[in-house]
Amino acid sequence: MMMRLINKADMLPLKDVKIHDDFWSYYINLIKDVVVPYQWQALNDKVLDAEPSRAIKNLKIAAGKEEGEFYGMVFQDSDIAKWLEAVGYLLLCERNPDLERIADEVIDLLAQAQQEDGYLNTYYIVKEPGQRWSNLCECHELYCAGHLIEGAIAYFKATGKQKILDIVIRFADYIDEIFGNDPAKIHGYDGHQEIELALLKLYEITEEEKYLNLSKYFLDVRGIEQKPHFYDSELEKRNGKIHFHQWMVDNKHYSQAHQPILKQEDAVGHAVRAVYMYTGMAHLAALTSNEALYASCKKLWNSIVSKQLYITGSIGTQSYGEAFSFDYDLPSDTAYAETCASIGLIFFAQRMLEIEADVQYADVIERALYNTVLGGMSRDGRSFFYVNPLEVYPEACEKNENYKHVKPIRQKWFDCACCPPNIARLISSLGQYLYTVREKTIYANLYISGTSTFKIDKKEFILEQNSSYPWQEKIQFDVQTNQDVEFNLALRIPSWCDDIKIKINEAIYPIKDSIQNGYVFIKRSWKNKDQIELLLSLPILPMKSHPLVRQNAGKVAIQRGPIVYCLEEVDNGKSLYQLELMLSSGFEIIQDSSFIENLQVMFGKAVKTKETNWIDTLYKKHGKIENEIVTVKLIPYFAWANRGLGEMQIWTRFVE
Amino acid sequence: MMMRLINKADMLPLKDVKIHDDFWSYYINLIKDVVVPYQWQALNDKVLDAEPSRAIKNLKIAAGKEEGEFYGMVFQDSDIAKWLEAVGYLLLCERNPDLERIADEVIDLLAQAQQEDGYLNTYYIVKEPGQRWSNLCECHELYCAGHLIEGAIAYFKATGKQKILDIVIRFADYIDEIFGNDPAKIHGYDGHQEIELALLKLYEITEEEKYLNLSKYFLDVRGIEQKPHFYDSELEKRNGKIHFHQWMVDNKHYSQAHQPILKQEDAVGHAVRAVYMYTGMAHLAALTSNEALYASCKKLWNSIVSKQLYITGSIGTQSYGEAFSFDYDLPSDTAYAETCASIGLIFFAQRMLEIEADVQYADVIERALYNTVLGGMSRDGRSFFYVNPLEVYPEACEKNENYKHVKPIRQKWFDCACCPPNIARLISSLGQYLYTVREKTIYANLYISGTSTFKIDKKEFILEQNSSYPWQEKIQFDVQTNQDVEFNLALRIPSWCDDIKIKINEAIYPIKDSIQNGYVFIKRSWKNKDQIELLLSLPILPMKSHPLVRQNAGKVAIQRGPIVYCLEEVDNGKSLYQLELMLSSGFEIIQDSSFIENLQVMFGKAVKTKETNWIDTLYKKHGKIENEIVTVKLIPYFAWANRGLGEMQIWTRFVE
Repeated sequence: MMMRLINKADMLPLKDVKIHDDFWSYYINLIKDVVVPYQWQALNDKVLDAEPSRAIKNLKIAAGKEEGEFYGMVFQDSDIAKWLEAVGYLLLCERNPDLERIADEVIDLLAQAQQEDGYLNTYYIVKEPGQRWSNLCECHELYCAGHLIEGAIAYFKATGKQKILDIVIRFADYIDEIFGNDPAKIHGYDGHQEIELALLKLYEITEEEKYLNLSKYFLDVRGIEQKPHFYDSELEKRNGKIHFHQWMVDNKHYSQAHQPILKQEDAVGHAVRAVYMYTGMAHLAALTSNEALYASCKKLWNSIVSKQLYITGSIGTQSYGEAFSFDYDLPSDTAYAETCASIGLIFFAQRMLEIEADVQYADVIERALYNTVLGGMSRDGRSFFYVNPLEVYPEACEKNENYKHVKPIRQKWFDCACCPPNIARLISSLGQYLYTVREKTIYANLYISGTSTFKIDKKEFILEQNSSYPWQEKIQFDVQTNQDVEFNLALRIPSWCDDIKIKINEAIYPIKDSIQNGYVFIKRSWKNKDQIELLLSLPILPMKSHPLVRQNAGKVAIQRGPIVYCLEEVDNGKSLYQLELMLSSGFEIIQDSSFIENLQVMFGKAVKTKETNWIDTLYKKHGKIENEIVTVKLIPYFAWANRGLGEMQIWTRFVE
Repeated sequence: MMMRLINKADMLPLKDVKIHDDFWSYYINLIKDVVVPYQWQALNDKVLDAEPSRAIKNLKIAAGKEEGEFYGMVFQDSDIAKWLEAVGYLLLCERNPDLERIADEVIDLLAQAQQEDGYLNTYYIVKEPGQRWSNLCECHELYCAGHLIEGAIAYFKATGKQKILDIVIRFADYIDEIFGNDPAKIHGYDGHQEIELALLKLYEITEEEKYLNLSKYFLDVRGIEQKPHFYDSELEKRNGKIHFHQWMVDNKHYSQAHQPILKQEDAVGHAVRAVYMYTGMAHLAALTSNEALYASCKKLWNSIVSKQLYITGSIGTQSYGEAFSFDYDLPSDTAYAETCASIGLIFFAQRMLEIEADVQYADVIERALYNTVLGGMSRDGRSFFYVNPLEVYPEACEKNENYKHVKPIRQKWFDCACCPPNIARLISSLGQYLYTVREKTIYANLYISGTSTFKIDKKEFILEQNSSYPWQEKIQFDVQTNQDVEFNLALRIPSWCDDIKIKINEAIYPIKDSIQNGYVFIKRSWKNKDQIELLLSLPILPMKSHPLVRQNAGKVAIQRGPIVYCLEEVDNGKSLYQLELMLSSGFEIIQDSSFIENLQVMFGKAVKTKETNWIDTLYKKHGKIENEIVTVKLIPYFAWANRGLGEMQIWTRFVE
C-alpha cells in the first residue's frame, strides 16, 4: 500500500449542532420524552409486562444502600451506563434539571459502589466478590467499564460535572494497573470489545496518553499466537467453570480473538463485538496515524460492506453466536441483524470517515440509520426489535425453530436489553454525525436540518441546513457569518444518487471535476447569507443483489433515497412471496399519514399467483396456474410492524 | 363419514416374490453383499474412521460373555434388531448358511442376555440395573423391544427357527404384565413409538390376541388427558432426572403425546415417531375393522401428503426435534428429511394400502423409495445420509449454524445409526411392497420385475413382471398357470402419468370406466401365457408446488416418472441458484453410465446470470445484468453426491 500520514478529521461536536428537522426531531424528542424516561422506568423494574432489569437495584446493593442479591445478566450495569450516555447527549442539547438530578443520584450511587481501589462492577461486587478478572472471556467486566466511561464522558461534556469523570478515571487507572505488558499484570482482554473504544474517548478528553496506550494494549494483545490461548488459560485457572457456554470459550472467532487484529481480514464472529473492535481500531489508527492498522480496518470494512451487509444496513447472518457466517450469505428470513450491530457499524463508519472522506462510510451510516436503527424501535418508542429480519412469516417464527430468534412484533424490554439504550444513545447524539471537519474543509455527511456552528481560521460562523430529506430532493445551506470565511464545503453525493444539481446563490455550480470520493468540493470565500442549494434526485430504484447472494436471486428490493421499502401483509394480504413486482408499471409515491405522519409510501403493480386451482395437491404439473394483476403498497422498512402482526418482505420477485 | 367394514388386503408375502429387476436387483444385492456385512462390521466396531457402535459388545456384556461398560445411545440395541430383520429378509429370499450362523450366534447372545423375567435391553441390564421403565419418555425401552420383535419375526419367517421368536414372545409377555389398564400396571407408553406396530406383527404370526390388545392399549393410552401428564409423573418419580433434554419431556407434541390419537388431525413432532405410530394405527384399524381409527389415519395421512411432504418423499421440515413444523413450510436447504422418516412413511402408506386400494398410497411409497431412500445411500452402499436436503451449498453447511444438521456428503456411520439399517431392512424386504391381494383381486402397486406366486381359489399361479421401469414405458405381465384362474388384476396408474395404454395378448384393452382410485381393473379368467402389456408414458414434468409453499414460489422441480431430478455443481458449475430453466427448450434424455450404470440423465437449457459486471458492490440498481444461455445437466436426485462435494439443487427458477 501507499504510505501516507493519516490526517484525521473531527466530528463537529454535538454541542455545536442544533437539529430541527421534519424527520428526525420527532425521534430525538421521542428519545427525550419517552424512551429515556421509559428506560429509567425499566432500569427500576417499573415497566409492566416486561422482563425486570434490576440494574438500579443491583447498584444500590453494591452501594450498600439496599439488601439483596444480584439479579440479571453479568453485563446488567451497561444498561445504566448507556442510559447515562443518552442522558448526557440530551442534556448537551438542552439542559433539564429534573433529569440531571436523577442522573446525579445515579452517579452518587456509582461513587458509593466504587471500591477503594477504583473497581466498579455490581456483578462482581455483589455476587462474586474475590472473583474479579477470572472470566474475561465471558463476563464482560471491561465491557461494562467501557460503557461506563462512555456514559461518564457524555455526562461530563453536557454538565461539566467532574464527579462521574473522576469515577471512571479512578476505574481506568485501576484497570491500567491490572492489565498490560508488565509480567505481573494480566495479559488478557475482554470477551466483548468495548473498553478499547472507550479508553480512546477518555484519552481524547483527558489527553492522558496512558489511556491510549492501554487501549492499544488491549487491541494488540487480542488473539496473539500463544498456547494455551488466553481464554483457555484463564478457564484452566478457574477450574473449567463456564458462565454462559463452553463454545464461547472454545470458538475464538466468536469474539475475534482467533488471530492478532492486524492479521484479520474477514469480519467474523459476533457482529456487535466485531464492529465495536473495528471502531476502536479505526479510532486508534487515526489518533496514532497508524497506516497498517488503517489498512486492516479497510479490509474488515470491505469484508462487511462488499460481502456481508444487508441492504437495510444490518449485519449478522445467523442466530448462533449472533454472528457473521460467510461471504454473500444473506438470508432475509433467518437474519440476525441485531439493532446494536448496526449501531456499532455506524460507530465504525464514523471513525473511518474521520480518517478518510469517502462517501461509502456515510452511505453505510445512512443505510443503517434510516432502516435498521429506526426500524428497531416502534413509532411510539415503547417497543423494540433486537433482531431485524428482512422477511417475516409469523407462523414460521412460532412453529419452525430456525426462526425462534425472530420476533414478528417488537418487544417491550428484553432480558438482554442492549438494543433499546443503544438506540437512545445513538439518536440522542445524532448531531455529531452530520459534519466532519478537516482543517479548512467541512464535510456534510448527513442531510438533516439544523443549525451548526463552526470555527475555521478562528472565525466562528453558522451553517444552517434545511431540507425535507429523505422525502424531498432539495437541501439548502445558508451561511451566517460576521466576516468572510474561506473554507471548502464538501457535500456528500450518496451512491444511490446519479443526478445532482448544485446552485450557489441561485447560480448553477459546475460539479464536474469537483467530485472526489463521492463528495462535491466547493472552495470559496463565503459571505454572510450565501446560499447553497443541493438537489439530490430521488428516483425509485429496484435494487439487485450481487449474483453470489443466492437468497436474493431473481428478486429486487425497492429503494428510494436511503429508504428501503417493504411489503406488509396489512396492505397486501397474506403470502407476499406470491407477488412479482411489475417493474415496467413503475411506482407512485403517495404521502400517507394514516399511521406515521407524512410517511411516503409507494403503490405499484404486481402479478400474483391465484390459488383457486389448487385444492389438496401439494405438487402438480406446471402450466395451469392463473395469475392476476394486483396493486401493491410498499412502505418504508423502518415503519413496518406498527400495525399489528403480519408478514413482511423486502426482497421480492419481479417481472420487467 | 360413511360407515363400512374395512376389508383388509394382504401384502403378497416376501417369500412369494422373487425380484430380478434391472434397477432394483443391484440395490438388493448391494444390501446383501455390502451393506449388511458392512453393518455387521459396524456393530462390531470394525469400520475404520467411523463412530464405534459397540452394539454387539454391549450385548456380550449383558450376556455375561465380556466385561465392560455399556457404550452408545440408550437405543443402541435397535441396530442389532434392524440388522437381524434385514438378515431375515435376505435369508427369506436366499438361504445363506454363513450369514445364518452369525445370526444364530447373535440370537444365542440375546438368549443369554435375556433376564429371568423375559426382560431384554442391554442399557438397563448393564448400565442402569433396577431402573427399568423409569424413563419411558426418553429411553426407548419399548422402542428397542419393538425392533427386536420385528427382527425376530423376519428371522423366524426365513428360517423357521423358533428360538428368537420364543425370546421375543417371553419379552412381550413380560411387557404385557407390566403395562395395561390394571391398576397395578404402568399406565404409560414409550416416548418413541415402535412397539405398537411390532406387537401387531407378533399378533399376526402368533394369532395371540393379547399382543393385539397390548398394542391397542399403547395407542389408546397415548396422550390421554390427565394431569400430570404421564411423562411428567414419571419425571417426578425419578426426581427430575433427564436423560437427553428437558424439552423432550416438556414438548408433548414431539412424541405425539399431546392428545389422544383419535383427536390428532395434524402430523406434528418428530417425524419418525409420527409415522411409526400412524403405521401401528393403520394396521390396528385394518385388523380390528376400526373405521374411526382409520378416519384418524386418513386425516394424518392428508396432513402429511397434502401439506408437509417434500417432492422427494421426505418429511420433517426442521432440525429441532427432527420434526414437522407447519403446513406448507417446506424449506429445501434446512430440511431435515430424515431417511428413516421416509421409510416410516412407506410403512404407513403400505398399511393404508392394505385398507384401501388408492393410488395415492403407492404413489407416496414410490416417491419416497426412488428419491429419498435410494438417495440416503451412496451407490457403493458404504456411506449414508441421515438428513436428505433438497438443496445444498456446502459452504453454508460449514459456516452457517442453521445448516449444521445438513451434511453435504454421505457419512460412514453415525453416532445415531438408525438410518443405514433401516434402508437395509426396507430394500431387503422390497418384494412385499409389489402386490397386495384382496380376495380375488391382485393389486400391482410397484413396477419391479420379478416372479411372484399367488394363490386364489386354491389355485396357485405365477405372475411374471418385466420392465425397465422407471426408465422405459413398457411393463409386461405374463401369467403362468396350470389351470385357468379368475381374478381381477388391478394395475396402478401413477398420478404423474396421464397417458396409458393396456394390451392383453396384443389386443388393446379399453381402459375407460375401468379405473377406480387410480387402479385399472381387469377382470378375466386368465389362462396360461396370457400377456398384459402396460404402457405408462414417461413425460418430463416441470412440477410446481402448491402456492402456499413460500420457499418454492417461482420455481419448478423436474420429474420424470417417479424420479425427481436435480442439478449438481459437478455438471453445472457453482451458483446453481443463478440458473433459470428454459422450459420451452425442452429436455433431452440421455443414458449415462459414467458413474452409475444406465442412469437416465437430462440435458436442457437455462438462462444464467453473468457475473462479469459485478465487482465489489453488494447492491446496485437493477438493469445492467447480462445473462447467458447455458446447457444444464440434470441427474436423478437419488444419484446425487456420488461424485464429490458440491452444490445440489432441485427446485429451480425458470422461464417459460
